Amino acid sequence: MGGDDAPGAQIEGARRALRSGIGPIILVGQTDEVSGELERRRIPPGTFDIVHAAETVAMDESPTYALKRKREASIAVATRLVRDAKACALVSCGSTGAQVASSILHLGRLPGVERPAIAVAFPGTQGWGVLIDAGANAQNRPSHLVGFAVMGTLYLRHIFGVENPRVGLVSIGEEAAKGNELVVEAHRLLEGTPGINFVGMVEGRGVYTGGADVLVCDGFVGNVLLKFSESASRWVVHHLREGMRGRPLVTLGGLLMKPAFRHFRRVADPSSIGGAPLLGVKGTSIIAHGSSDAEAVMNALAMARRLVDEKVNEKITANLQLETRGE
Amino acid sequence: MGGDDAPGAQIEGARRALRSGIGPIILVGQTDEVSGELERRRIPPGTFDIVHAAETVAMDESPTYALKRKREASIAVATRLVRDAKACALVSCGSTGAQVASSILHLGRLPGVERPAIAVAFPGTQGWGVLIDAGANAQNRPSHLVGFAVMGTLYLRHIFGVENPRVGLVSIGEEAAKGNELVVEAHRLLEGTPGINFVGMVEGRGVYTGGADVLVCDGFVGNVLLKFSESASRWVVHHLREGMRGRPLVTLGGLLMKPAFRHFRRVADPSSIGGAPLLGVKGTSIIAHGSSDAEAVMNALAMARRLVDEKVNEKITANLQLETRGE
Repeated sequence: MGGDDAPGAQIEGARRALRSGIGPIILVGQTDEVSGELERRRIPPGTFDIVHAAETVAMDESPTYALKRKREASIAVATRLVRDAKACALVSCGSTGAQVASSILHLGRLPGVERPAIAVAFPGTQGWGVLIDAGANAQNRPSHLVGFAVMGTLYLRHIFGVENPRVGLVSIGEEAAKGNELVVEAHRLLEGTPGINFVGMVEGRGVYTGGADVLVCDGFVGNVLLKFSESASRWVVHHLREGMRGRPLVTLGGLLMKPAFRHFRRVADPSSIGGAPLLGVKGTSIIAHGSSDAEAVMNALAMARRLVDEKVNEKITANLQLETRGE
Repeated sequence: MGGDDAPGAQIEGARRALRSGIGPIILVGQTDEVSGELERRRIPPGTFDIVHAAETVAMDESPTYALKRKREASIAVATRLVRDAKACALVSCGSTGAQVASSILHLGRLPGVERPAIAVAFPGTQGWGVLIDAGANAQNRPSHLVGFAVMGTLYLRHIFGVENPRVGLVSIGEEAAKGNELVVEAHRLLEGTPGINFVGMVEGRGVYTGGADVLVCDGFVGNVLLKFSESASRWVVHHLREGMRGRPLVTLGGLLMKPAFRHFRRVADPSSIGGAPLLGVKGTSIIAHGSSDAEAVMNALAMARRLVDEKVNEKITANLQLETRGE
């Protein structure tokens, strides 16, 4: 178990998930540490299965190097439980890079998937949207983006109930020929992709508020955008505070508005969704934020459950086999 | 003259600029239309020079195609005035693509500049910062980013008074080896670039709030980020409004907070800066927002004046010749 508040947040989140009918749940980590935390929280023995993992991957370690050297890292042990059908899904708040590498290495890719991708759902101004890939890949080829479009469509449809999500390709203009080589070629491929509702290029200003629900981009752009949105939120709040300084009535307004700021933080907070799946691997692998609290962990476990129950992986395989391109 | 409110906003902005000592100013456009507007505003003949341009480039036209076909487009006529030393700078609220293409075609590049770039200044939480390239290029090579770093540094130093700006390369992690091929190679080049204060990779979450003042990225990423910041601001405001709905006290807070929202809009609004220079061309070319009002036009003209007065182009040439790489 990794994460800033491990193992407390993880264990408390797992307890809440279990109470709401999600389980059984296996805790993977240092047995001593886990048992100690269970005892401290007066959780009866036998509530969870515990599987020992001697090592951990630090947040600043090189994921591929760490996985080679640490066969008994908790992320590796947990992923092998899924591979060996001893668990149906994996949730981690640890190093994203290590989880992506471990999932691809131990679970392998679904048939027809060239590159797994992280799908991050967000509450846009017109309803739920998804950004894919949010950073599983540092670099992509045009055909990878076709897989992202299909996987993002199925995720939004079956988990968020958006029946016919509009797929947009993130670019610097709305014209098909404008953009870098990657998106211009991906646009051509997406126009011929069956089973998706492709609406063309979408500019940055349309990401949260625009004409597409599934926002397709390479993992570099997606990761920069996702992390920039944190920066942008903090930036707005910073300048609102500056605008209040030395003005008592405006400051009073800010105090009265607190519930609205809380509302914003709640919708913007990734913990309200709990986690982002790495789509395209054989198994369910949910990436939770390193700063997850117990509620976020519970929501991530619930997300894992839904992906399994809705058979999203089977749907991805079936849809990608519609294409002639398949492996 | 292009832009959503042309030629009214342009002429009113030019009048205000003239009053504050910036000028003389040449208006380039359809003579009839310009004269009519001057008359309507009771501006005496002779206040401005007027140069006739028979055509315009529409916002949705392909810039390169339009420039080939329309030799007498106002943007082409205005750029040639700068080339022929009849004007020292060019300001436009029209098509950005056409202005970039026309500036590169008619003015040419400064010695040592591989690729001109758009430098967008923004008020970060730690002071002024600049994002470069914000979209002059759809695709870049690593060496282009070295020029962006140098030009961004000089712009921030001489126009915004940031003495030794920290240069960060936008990427998906802080490690030098993490990222796509473009940034990993650019990182290597930037480490050996004299005259800049390179601090390494910067993640998306550090764009507005982080450890760098000059944010270097390729034009695709920069344009997506810049436009996304508009989307993100609207998104924050949307969810704050949602959080107020049906709660009278919170709504009252929102009303009292109006001055703070106005403050935010003012700092976030590109018109407070007026325009973004296309750096790296022989001459001064300021890109103003299509939706510029008179104040934005005035500020853009003031920005043009300062770039000329501070001899930013000469400084760029001198600094790029420090490098062995020069053309």
